[in-house]
Amino acid sequence: MTIEDAINSVKPADPDAYRAAQARLDRLTKPQGSLGRLEDLAARWAAMTGDVKPAIPRAAVYTFAADHGVVAEGVSAYPSAVTAQMVLNFVRGGAAVNVLARHVGAEVRVVDIGVAHDFGTVPGLIARKVAKGTKNFLREPAMTDDEARRAVTVGVELAEQAVHDGFGLLGTGEMGIGNTTASAAIAAVYTELPVAQVVGRGTGVDDAGLARKTTVIQQALAQHGFASRLGPADPWEVLRKVGGLEIAGLAGLIVGAAALRVPVVLDGFIAGAAALIAVGLQPNCRDYLLASHRSVEAGHQAVLDRLALSPLLTLDLRLGEGTGACLGIGLVLASLKIMTEMATFGEAGVSERQG
Amino acid sequence: MTIEDAINSVKPADPDAYRAAQARLDRLTKPQGSLGRLEDLAARWAAMTGDVKPAIPRAAVYTFAADHGVVAEGVSAYPSAVTAQMVLNFVRGGAAVNVLARHVGAEVRVVDIGVAHDFGTVPGLIARKVAKGTKNFLREPAMTDDEARRAVTVGVELAEQAVHDGFGLLGTGEMGIGNTTASAAIAAVYTELPVAQVVGRGTGVDDAGLARKTTVIQQALAQHGFASRLGPADPWEVLRKVGGLEIAGLAGLIVGAAALRVPVVLDGFIAGAAALIAVGLQPNCRDYLLASHRSVEAGHQAVLDRLALSPLLTLDLRLGEGTGACLGIGLVLASLKIMTEMATFGEAGVSERQG
Repeated sequence: MTIEDAINSVKPADPDAYRAAQARLDRLTKPQGSLGRLEDLAARWAAMTGDVKPAIPRAAVYTFAADHGVVAEGVSAYPSAVTAQMVLNFVRGGAAVNVLARHVGAEVRVVDIGVAHDFGTVPGLIARKVAKGTKNFLREPAMTDDEARRAVTVGVELAEQAVHDGFGLLGTGEMGIGNTTASAAIAAVYTELPVAQVVGRGTGVDDAGLARKTTVIQQALAQHGFASRLGPADPWEVLRKVGGLEIAGLAGLIVGAAALRVPVVLDGFIAGAAALIAVGLQPNCRDYLLASHRSVEAGHQAVLDRLALSPLLTLDLRLGEGTGACLGIGLVLASLKIMTEMATFGEAGVSERQG
Repeated sequence: MTIEDAINSVKPADPDAYRAAQARLDRLTKPQGSLGRLEDLAARWAAMTGDVKPAIPRAAVYTFAADHGVVAEGVSAYPSAVTAQMVLNFVRGGAAVNVLARHVGAEVRVVDIGVAHDFGTVPGLIARKVAKGTKNFLREPAMTDDEARRAVTVGVELAEQAVHDGFGLLGTGEMGIGNTTASAAIAAVYTELPVAQVVGRGTGVDDAGLARKTTVIQQALAQHGFASRLGPADPWEVLRKVGGLEIAGLAGLIVGAAALRVPVVLDGFIAGAAALIAVGLQPNCRDYLLASHRSVEAGHQAVLDRLALSPLLTLDLRLGEGTGACLGIGLVLASLKIMTEMATFGEAGVSERQG
């Protein structure tokens, strides 16, 4: 499936299936609507997939890793070397995303889409490197047109492969020292908010680091011509100039999954930036997105507002990797089991409400 | 263990263990504090149990069922018969709490502590009936002193039995048509808020039903002498006059678990009322409580504020049974796995932060 095939295939979610699912939920042994957002999740699942009483899907979290040239500007509390080190931690199963994925029964798939390190052959690592990190977007575009397209293509193809491998639910994950800087730049463009309102501390920069990060993004947006722009942004231009290779991969994964009617559980702020790109490429993608949590990262709520998504959890997470997506997957699976395993009033011999 | 034994055994949580747990969390491969409330959960677990690197506990949700005489006043959308019908649904595994407990790997234990129905012998039902429901507390005290003590004792003994059976984490559940009315009365006494601010729609009464429910509670509190009372309430008096048998059982379960240093995950509004009683009996009990979610029920946030507990989830649930507790148990187990399964920086060869 090419990017264009995927973009052209994404249909809006099906409101009739949503209503059919709600009708079934209303026959289950509980007061109508009393399971709140779990009911909405189950009904949205039906609207996305067309399946009102689904089999419980296998879930996979795709953790895309890439480096960022803008780290040279001192925007992160950690050195770029940590990206590669954490990739090896993921592959060995010792990171938080591995623990939480196992907890909810999901698989973690780790993708080198742009780490500035030569891994050689690492069993369990999906080697789809497009470049050894992005360029420093304060000085030049983060990537070329060709790199952006190749990175999005990786995501589309991995979504296709996931469905082929039997997964019916995908989560987004990422690792990339510097990627909250790229994500804040993308968020500023799409939300049209001042940079200071969408920039955050990422892995934990101090006040001076936060000020530097803010200035770098402001200057980069001005230099790339976004500061004074009116009207909607071109997602390819945003991605190329201030994006990241893992963000491009995630955007492709979202478009590919949506084309195949596979729901995608978003992780935090970086996932939100990728979703803005994906929805920029094809607005119907939004219908296939579920927001797992609201991150501590300052701009995340604005991104979720822009996507018109409401987070399921607020646990003060700010780790990324796909950790929040794992917890969200747990809730999605819970909602599907409610739909499929609960007794109806008739089956259980329980009286319905009076009056 | 008698009630007094249990009350006298509850020690405050251990702040040294909390700090030791936080020190371990800070060595794991993630920015410090980046897992937010999951880290706090793991550290609170250590403070409760003394165990900084615990084995993953087996969890059980205790769903206490009882009927309420005050239903005669037209305070519920469902007839009392539904309590017994739902008990059978629980025992057969078809209710929401069964589905969500299976999802998180917890066991559901269903306790008839006061259902107005003769079940005979039902395999899987814990038969500890104290009375066939409470009296109508608008007319007379809901129960006798002896009934209140016996119902609390059931909870204490079941907590002891749970530990004997190998459970290390308990969740609270309940079923009782009319029990949001009793819980709102308890909440009004302890929060000292006007009844109208702590009363809600329960399983879904309409506006007229809500007005009736509010008036019934106001009149009952006045008749039982709570309306003009100054100073702290006596938990036994509150329980006896406007409580419920399942609420008493839950209060006993909390006190018993706290005495044995076993964490308890609270469900929603009714669990909160039971927790107010338990904390009234022994203030240290609060240290062993985790609030799973904030219910839609109007008074729940005020109850949580009074308990100084912050809910983990806000999913617009209002079902009870222990459904929210199950989801909370899932998050507690996730936090313990983070503590015990993640690699440290040293083990993984990952660089720590710069500067």
